[in-house]
Amino acid sequence: MSTSPALTAPFGVLAQVADATQLGEGEAGVLRVLRALAGPDRRAAGEISRFARLPVPVASAVLGELRTLGVVDGLRPAGLTADGRALVATLGLRPLTYAVDPWSAPLSPDLVAVAGALDALVGQQPDVDVTLDQSFATGETKVRRVLWMIAAGALPTPSLLIVGDDDLLSVAVARVGAALGVPLAGEVVVIDISAAILATIASSAPPDAAIDLIEHDVRRPLPPAARGRSCVASTDPPYTTQGAALFLARALEGLRPGPGWDAFLHYGAKPPGPAIDLQGELTRLGLVVRELRPGVNHYLGAGVIGGRSDAYRLELTAQQSAETDWEATAYDGPLYTADLRARPRTYVCAGCGERFIVGPREPIATVGALQAHGCPTCGGTSFRPGSLAPQSIPGEKA
Amino acid sequence: MSTSPALTAPFGVLAQVADATQLGEGEAGVLRVLRALAGPDRRAAGEISRFARLPVPVASAVLGELRTLGVVDGLRPAGLTADGRALVATLGLRPLTYAVDPWSAPLSPDLVAVAGALDALVGQQPDVDVTLDQSFATGETKVRRVLWMIAAGALPTPSLLIVGDDDLLSVAVARVGAALGVPLAGEVVVIDISAAILATIASSAPPDAAIDLIEHDVRRPLPPAARGRSCVASTDPPYTTQGAALFLARALEGLRPGPGWDAFLHYGAKPPGPAIDLQGELTRLGLVVRELRPGVNHYLGAGVIGGRSDAYRLELTAQQSAETDWEATAYDGPLYTADLRARPRTYVCAGCGERFIVGPREPIATVGALQAHGCPTCGGTSFRPGSLAPQSIPGEKA
Ligand SMILES: C[S@@+](CC[C@H](N)C(=O)[O-])C[C@H]1O[C@@H](n2cnc3c(N)ncnc32)[C@H](O)[C@@H]1O
Ligand SMILES: C[S@@+](CC[C@H](N)C(=O)[O-])C[C@H]1O[C@@H](n2cnc3c(N)ncnc32)[C@H](O)[C@@H]1O
Repeated sequence: MSTSPALTAPFGVLAQVADATQLGEGEAGVLRVLRALAGPDRRAAGEISRFARLPVPVASAVLGELRTLGVVDGLRPAGLTADGRALVATLGLRPLTYAVDPWSAPLSPDLVAVAGALDALVGQQPDVDVTLDQSFATGETKVRRVLWMIAAGALPTPSLLIVGDDDLLSVAVARVGAALGVPLAGEVVVIDISAAILATIASSAPPDAAIDLIEHDVRRPLPPAARGRSCVASTDPPYTTQGAALFLARALEGLRPGPGWDAFLHYGAKPPGPAIDLQGELTRLGLVVRELRPGVNHYLGAGVIGGRSDAYRLELTAQQSAETDWEATAYDGPLYTADLRARPRTYVCAGCGERFIVGPREPIATVGALQAHGCPTCGGTSFRPGSLAPQSIPGEKA
Repeated sequence: MSTSPALTAPFGVLAQVADATQLGEGEAGVLRVLRALAGPDRRAAGEISRFARLPVPVASAVLGELRTLGVVDGLRPAGLTADGRALVATLGLRPLTYAVDPWSAPLSPDLVAVAGALDALVGQQPDVDVTLDQSFATGETKVRRVLWMIAAGALPTPSLLIVGDDDLLSVAVARVGAALGVPLAGEVVVIDISAAILATIASSAPPDAAIDLIEHDVRRPLPPAARGRSCVASTDPPYTTQGAALFLARALEGLRPGPGWDAFLHYGAKPPGPAIDLQGELTRLGLVVRELRPGVNHYLGAGVIGGRSDAYRLELTAQQSAETDWEATAYDGPLYTADLRARPRTYVCAGCGERFIVGPREPIATVGALQAHGCPTCGGTSFRPGSLAPQSIPGEKA
């Protein structure tokens, strides 16, 4: 057994190389270079540059530092040493590319089968909880999300974080990986407020998938075990600027100190005003849009989101601060589409049928508050929206 | 002949409908609804909603107002009145969609031929002027840029503005339109500092293409005739944040009062720091990223940009102010990649061979300043970079 530091502290090696080369893309950029080298073939600097999305001189500097540390050998084109192979194995990196357009190219029969199986799972899920802005993507969309993450070089990864997973992306990652014959994530961390969603994931993921299911309300900071842990994040937030900003902030909380990590966001198109508000929030969070594919997510049924949403690949540009006071990031403002409705609306307790008026100027301002409290009659926390006449909502897609 | 106001003041009708419906997408949204109706078939509100990228209730409100003004008739699905047809003809709108992915789907043989012809034209262009961050896209990229604008519903348009056109997009628009049998722009306005580029466009565009060629340095405000005139813009700015922001600001100056107009930007990928700076500039300009396709632009030769750049579709979210003091928007700071090089560099006058040292701490700070002045010996304004050892530049792709 080697006792190289690469094996005992794999991320230490990434950080050291990022530091030595003053890499703007941080550990994430070094990880991408290692991923480019994970295959059996040696790779020229130009290929590594393209794959790792780094300019050639930058990729060369990273390779030079990896050579100094004994991870890459002295030959050209570049290849890994035995220690390097062990490091790459520890990080769960595998050679894998997806060269055609992941959103429009036809799926292979294997992947069509995965999409069908994912569609079948929806029948086993609890009904969408519209008060939480839930809405289920099609099986094909779920498969294409995974292919997109592969095409972007974000999978395979040591650790994938999913903030809100009614779309069972965790299950899709395991099944697409099985179909491709390549494990896509060393572990998957799923955060969701819904015990029912987490139960569906637990019962439908392959037994060997390392999925860590955490029942948690993201209005509160993440549990410490989930902080600074993952190398890529994906989130389908509620359809409000506040919701998107909150879920993304939690995604950043769960990522290792940046910069350079990818965060995938699925979010419905908004009119110009709320759209530029979101862009401002992204900048505030240090997230830059690297890829944006409008309308590629398809949903089952219409729902609040109108059957389509946009897919964003965001890159973290800032170094996360180790000193963040996470407790101060708790949030109790409006979050869900329903919270932003101007007119009060009736909600019916799913447990006992009791009705409540919820609205910004009512004693119960938001559905979230109602759920946090629980039904005063039966203690239930699941509520159905009542029959208020439909009303056009700023920023909502019909 | 009809004397409907729709014919005498077509944009007045758009503005009136946008006002009456308080449309967040402004005139641009109304134009998209009319474009959806431009074909021979009647269209259901749902189809119009998708095509015009507006929620169904919003599209319905626009249709209602167009009915009130006698542009749309009283039947369902919706169709144009005779006045409506005349309005759409005045605006140069035509039924045209491009349903496959414009960046990855194979081109039809006709379009392959157009790409070949555009590649052949490069031979007739003057050499790239690297001091102006020129670099020529491939013919295929030029064709795909046009198809993308069609797919996004931005073409056909009454007026297309191009800020910087060494890629001869104006010529590509005319030729792709001819190949598809559909004129794509009522007029094309081209702004460029390079008389040589404008001469190439003049000699290679089809004689019936209405192209207005304006020789102009965008460091200065646009000539009044180009202000507030166009409905869609495209720009390939210099590869610096300042350059991108300046060229985009001029694109906004040339667009009709917003919101809702599309601006297409082609720009090389930057490391995290400069990338988020650009995103901040976009927000400051009121431009939201609606679509972003990384690395889809291919260039002939490597050049400063490294053979690839990203394609952005931006939407203007703000109302442009009629009171802008354009003179105050003149700009004399660093603009081109060369301007940001830390080490001074030699430039050679193409006219007389005289050499000049240019650098941020030299008497001549930027190549732009040298060109503005002209060569003190022969008065020439064209300079070649001298043989300074290549140096890695922050934010530059190798
Ligand atoms: C907000 S919904 C939107 C999903 C939809 N599939 C989409 O693609 O747009 C996504 C997930 O977030 C979860 N969720 C909603 N509110 C939450 C909260 N406060 N804390 C944690 N998870 C939450 C929901 O249970 C659901 O699984
Ligand atoms: C900046 S270059 C970059 C082009 C490259 N084809 C691309 O796709 O990235 C684009 C055009 O801008 C023009 N240009 C450069 N500086 C200019 C200025 N100050 N005013 C107007 N046009 C300018 C160049 O002549 C060229 O035609």
